[in-house]
Amino acid sequence: MELLSALSLGELALSFSRVPLFPVFDLSYFIVSIIYLKYEPGAVELSRRHPMASWLCAMLHCFGSYILADLLLGEPLIDYFSNNSSILLASAVWYLIFFCPLDLFYKCVCFLPVKLIFVAMKEVVRVRKIAVGIHHAHHHYHHGWFVMIATGWVKGSGVALMSNFEQLLRGVWKPETNEILHMSFPTKASLYGAILFTLQQTRWLPVSKATLIFIFTMFMVSCKVFLTATHSHSSPFDVLEGYICPVLFGSDWGGDHHHDNHGGSQGGSGPGSPHSLPTKSKEELSEGSRKKKTKKAD
Amino acid sequence: MELLSALSLGELALSFSRVPLFPVFDLSYFIVSIIYLKYEPGAVELSRRHPMASWLCAMLHCFGSYILADLLLGEPLIDYFSNNSSILLASAVWYLIFFCPLDLFYKCVCFLPVKLIFVAMKEVVRVRKIAVGIHHAHHHYHHGWFVMIATGWVKGSGVALMSNFEQLLRGVWKPETNEILHMSFPTKASLYGAILFTLQQTRWLPVSKATLIFIFTMFMVSCKVFLTATHSHSSPFDVLEGYICPVLFGSDWGGDHHHDNHGGSQGGSGPGSPHSLPTKSKEELSEGSRKKKTKKAD
Amino acid sequence: MELLSALSLGELALSFSRVPLFPVFDLSYFIVSIIYLKYEPGAVELSRRHPMASWLCAMLHCFGSYILADLLLGEPLIDYFSNNSSILLASAVWYLIFFCPLDLFYKCVCFLPVKLIFVAMKEVVRVRKIAVGIHHAHHHYHHGWFVMIATGWVKGSGVALMSNFEQLLRGVWKPETNEILHMSFPTKASLYGAILFTLQQTRWLPVSKATLIFIFTMFMVSCKVFLTATHSHSSPFDVLEGYICPVLFGSDWGGDHHHDNHGGSQGGSGPGSPHSLPTKSKEELSEGSRKKKTKKAD
Repeated sequence: MELLSALSLGELALSFSRVPLFPVFDLSYFIVSIIYLKYEPGAVELSRRHPMASWLCAMLHCFGSYILADLLLGEPLIDYFSNNSSILLASAVWYLIFFCPLDLFYKCVCFLPVKLIFVAMKEVVRVRKIAVGIHHAHHHYHHGWFVMIATGWVKGSGVALMSNFEQLLRGVWKPETNEILHMSFPTKASLYGAILFTLQQTRWLPVSKATLIFIFTMFMVSCKVFLTATHSHSSPFDVLEGYICPVLFGSDWGGDHHHDNHGGSQGGSGPGSPHSLPTKSKEELSEGSRKKKTKKAD
Repeated sequence: MELLSALSLGELALSFSRVPLFPVFDLSYFIVSIIYLKYEPGAVELSRRHPMASWLCAMLHCFGSYILADLLLGEPLIDYFSNNSSILLASAVWYLIFFCPLDLFYKCVCFLPVKLIFVAMKEVVRVRKIAVGIHHAHHHYHHGWFVMIATGWVKGSGVALMSNFEQLLRGVWKPETNEILHMSFPTKASLYGAILFTLQQTRWLPVSKATLIFIFTMFMVSCKVFLTATHSHSSPFDVLEGYICPVLFGSDWGGDHHHDNHGGSQGGSGPGSPHSLPTKSKEELSEGSRKKKTKKAD
Repeated sequence: MELLSALSLGELALSFSRVPLFPVFDLSYFIVSIIYLKYEPGAVELSRRHPMASWLCAMLHCFGSYILADLLLGEPLIDYFSNNSSILLASAVWYLIFFCPLDLFYKCVCFLPVKLIFVAMKEVVRVRKIAVGIHHAHHHYHHGWFVMIATGWVKGSGVALMSNFEQLLRGVWKPETNEILHMSFPTKASLYGAILFTLQQTRWLPVSKATLIFIFTMFMVSCKVFLTATHSHSSPFDVLEGYICPVLFGSDWGGDHHHDNHGGSQGGSGPGSPHSLPTKSKEELSEGSRKKKTKKAD
């Protein structure tokens, strides 16, 4: 009986890992990514006055992970842009989200039940990207543990890791914060996922890749859907980090939430950043300020 | 009779497209590029106090297009710097423009009739660079339309597309504007030119490459010479964009000129850029403030 | 007798140039580099609140030269990170310097006699890196003088040349200064060293590479140990530049020290940098403010 269930789990995972991502899952990825761009303050006005800059930002939101991974691995930055169909699909999504009459498309995809489905499908793409990125890095560097982890991480995190420069393209510059200083849940989860997939790739984790993809996808989907549905900013890693970080580093990783409670113990982190507030990550901010922005977008 | 004229146009275009660029046309390109560097506020003082930074900026102005294209196509950023003769020529121009006794060289090349010739020759180089860039990208990505357009665009626009980082090298940081937000005429023309040459390269535009080079060069030369001679900031694309952009994007592309006339309707484009003025592009500013700067340069 | 001494110098240089750098010399390089990171204002607090950002900064301090050289030569940016043992060693040093109980490790390596030994060993690594970098660039570009000099320079200067972006990672942004505008002694010495090694590589300097490595290492070690021991900010090149720069560029290179003495003659270097103070280079600042920071670090 147990053998049977194990067999069926393995088979389920295997067929799940073979589902093609293009076009349905990729479409969801583009929709959710560009919705997050529209949440950014000033993004709607930007699309009206500077459509070219807005389109470039949308491309970074959709394909930032490929650009960063290509940069790390010394491949042409523009390599992925040779997939004309992906670019055209993402451009169509960008146009519909920003310029559809009556904002119909945006209102439809932002309707919570619909959005939750897209969010779930985006996580499927994210996990697959991490796995593919690590496989690719392993192909170049057989024993390059750090290379594999870094490649998987940037493939999972995407534009978040270059948000400072994506903002610069829109004329916004916030040097006092960045995604490394204030990691959002997807960035942290991508890092942990990249470590897991690297362990799997180097045979230290005795599971098949398909099974790991399946399990990690389930974890990411349930977390991200829950966080999106509840507009929550907390992270399931907070508890674990609250135990480990004080032991290892004399404080908790990120540490913003706890400091918030005690209040006032933060100060500037150097003369160059006198107002280094416990800024929330881009994606979290977007979630939090969704309603206000949506109204502005109308 | 018509056949004869067509034949002679084709032959003229062919021989025009075979004129070698080095050294005369390249020299003009370097002269005009470094003149624009000298127009920048603070550039003369920089050259006195930090010659190394000034020289590096001059190299970016002369070879920025190669660096950007190499970055996009994953080739060594420093590849073009192996052309010792080009680097030495550009360095000599930099030295003469900034340090020639009595500023003689600068005064000569800035004498309007002389300068117009150099400006015209710079456009010849620009168009040839776009064509070569697209040919090169086509060699790597046979069906990569977006790759071809992007490569041609950065080859034509050059340092303008990385002006924020070129300024950073000089200790100047203006995050609220960039060349994507406020495209100058050469940047826009390079983009349109890159689209035309991509259509030609993929056989959608039924003309020979030599003819397209010839026609587009004539267009660029006449526009740029006219704009330089009249110190004008307008762009021949304004009319066309005024028709197309409101239909496509609900507003006109760039849209600064019209907003300028109506006044006050702009506001900030987000909390990060509270004073996002309708800043003129770098090259236009230079043109406009030429006289003041020239005096300062003396 | 003279032949004998020449022979023995050549043999000494040859065996010196064959001493393996890993692990002892590399360890010293990592220790000194990460000490300089700890001198930075806010670095200790950063390591407590954002260990990941602190670790990434430490990696940039240790391996920045490889990243920059890979970027210039079009190789994978992350290439060096496949050396797991180097990364683990540098990470261990980072952990001990920032998180060792009672700050014991930091206090030991900062004890001046000990530190001087590490500083001397770091210079051995620096010179070897310059030589290897130029050899590598020469392999790709046989006549690329500028490519060789640039590669050697970035290999010698390391993180200093990208200090603006290393600071950005820590949430600090100081656009009004950078290492090109205000070169520290190691950056200038790396540039001059790169020129010397390029001359040697292209057979214009009639000495063997081993001898040049030996002589230049001796020069760097004595200068850097002297500067560190005396907490001095002056540079042995000041005298030479004081003669050459006024002739070539109408002022002295860098020129800060002299301006400091005369006072007030500086002004802003453009509207974008109204307070372009004669900021001291990062490494010099660190040296100068060592005592204050050390107390803060405790």
